[in-house]
Amino acid sequence: MTEGEFIAALRTLPLHPGARGLTDDGAVVDAGALFVTTDSLVEGVHYLASDPPGDVAWKLVATNLSDLAAKGAGVEGVLLNYPIGDDAWDRAFLAGFGDALRAMGARLIGGDTVSLRGARTLTLTALGSDAAAPVRSGAQGGDALWVTGTIGDAGAGLTIAQGSDGPAELLEAYRRPVPRLAEGRALAPVARAMMDVSDGLLIDAGRMAAASGVAVTVDLDAVPLSDAYRAWGGDARAAATSGDDYELLFALAGGAVPPVAATRVGWFAVGEGLSLIEHGRAVALPSSLGFEHRGS
Amino acid sequence: MTEGEFIAALRTLPLHPGARGLTDDGAVVDAGALFVTTDSLVEGVHYLASDPPGDVAWKLVATNLSDLAAKGAGVEGVLLNYPIGDDAWDRAFLAGFGDALRAMGARLIGGDTVSLRGARTLTLTALGSDAAAPVRSGAQGGDALWVTGTIGDAGAGLTIAQGSDGPAELLEAYRRPVPRLAEGRALAPVARAMMDVSDGLLIDAGRMAAASGVAVTVDLDAVPLSDAYRAWGGDARAAATSGDDYELLFALAGGAVPPVAATRVGWFAVGEGLSLIEHGRAVALPSSLGFEHRGS
Repeated sequence: MTEGEFIAALRTLPLHPGARGLTDDGAVVDAGALFVTTDSLVEGVHYLASDPPGDVAWKLVATNLSDLAAKGAGVEGVLLNYPIGDDAWDRAFLAGFGDALRAMGARLIGGDTVSLRGARTLTLTALGSDAAAPVRSGAQGGDALWVTGTIGDAGAGLTIAQGSDGPAELLEAYRRPVPRLAEGRALAPVARAMMDVSDGLLIDAGRMAAASGVAVTVDLDAVPLSDAYRAWGGDARAAATSGDDYELLFALAGGAVPPVAATRVGWFAVGEGLSLIEHGRAVALPSSLGFEHRGS
Repeated sequence: MTEGEFIAALRTLPLHPGARGLTDDGAVVDAGALFVTTDSLVEGVHYLASDPPGDVAWKLVATNLSDLAAKGAGVEGVLLNYPIGDDAWDRAFLAGFGDALRAMGARLIGGDTVSLRGARTLTLTALGSDAAAPVRSGAQGGDALWVTGTIGDAGAGLTIAQGSDGPAELLEAYRRPVPRLAEGRALAPVARAMMDVSDGLLIDAGRMAAASGVAVTVDLDAVPLSDAYRAWGGDARAAATSGDDYELLFALAGGAVPPVAATRVGWFAVGEGLSLIEHGRAVALPSSLGFEHRGS
């Protein structure tokens, strides 16, 4: 596609009014305090060249908006930096990008197009309004640790994407995660700490505890697993150490009940470190708690 | 450099308070209506792998902040998306990036680091406050066309960077342009249309006229040239068709005097199209008016 064709296609997507039809060098966003986050995906590092372009687009949007969800922010809009150069890929990317914007209620604010040269780098910047959630450092001893949805589906989906057998439902959880935007807004006023589960439940729980200066214990038997994941043969240990779930992990005062569907998976205490309980007994931590270092 | 080392180095640069020390997944910016612009530079497309990394960093910041200058915006801060992977290059980039932030009064808000894979893609997103300038479409018949600074120095600098002889001053104009931020803020209340000269004076003047629905005439004899550019042997025609000047081009009501140092280089009239005057006579347009299509 040419730059003109690509921008013409972008103009058919939901546009932020500040984008003024993508006719100028920038956009004006007037929404009070803005939460700003940006992520880049590199071909061969964050996704495979053989991955469906529409799914790559979806994930680019979903991972950024999941950061907004974790802040209890509304979705103001997104900016896209995109390398044009492979017609079929560009068109499939745009289709998935439009699907994601519409599904998540996001609007395009602007961006930049460049010529494709070698491995693709895709960058999305998301702006959120009314960020109201606490940061990840507010958990206190006595708080309970909760998580939305189910854990492990995306990790199973990655295995399936790499060639294993398994149901489309799990592959979809990996390729088209849905950020918990509504849940994030409902949780923001009551959570003491909140983050999204991107690298793995255990590693992210440990990070929340470390940032908060308290200890955390996770009960493996409480980790919520989907029927599809159980039927596929997945267990809680694998679920808690795989990534890409994009569920919300949050701390609530002990005894408080969350305003959204969620599962209590552990508790915080005075002290430090991450501990694990399985079948009622303390067990050793697995050698890998999740994605330690993703270069992003 | 590792991601940790790179982020530690970023923490020594001027940080936006919303960045909270670059410890979280995003930043909060509370500055009223924000003007948002983003640009990506691709190695081999927008700069050469052999270009000094510090100069590439400078230009990445300068080109984005020049977009803010053209909107009369204050510099709220910038986000950087950066591929880590070549130690010497990374360190030299950071040095130039810090130089640019300090020289232009910009602060780092956040960003993302990824692993370098193939040709580098560098992305900067700039947020500006109090954008007050008109867009490029407000010029009216009878208005005068003005430009700040001198034109052509950066174009000569590009030739010198490619191996021609010439003074360091012109090379510097190409490699380390200084966006006209203070001038943009002073001009915002009085200009009827404003943009930065990035692709060439003639092509950008034509774009302003087209966006405004009027005709524009540029007087080549009036194009401001530096002593260094004249001594190097440059002429007005080459200057007006080369890019990367990052001066401000703006329309003022006929007879009005700008509040900053600037040169009147033409006028708008009812009608359409771009015309050229040289030695008091209408002359044909050059075959190239500037960078027609840069893929960005």
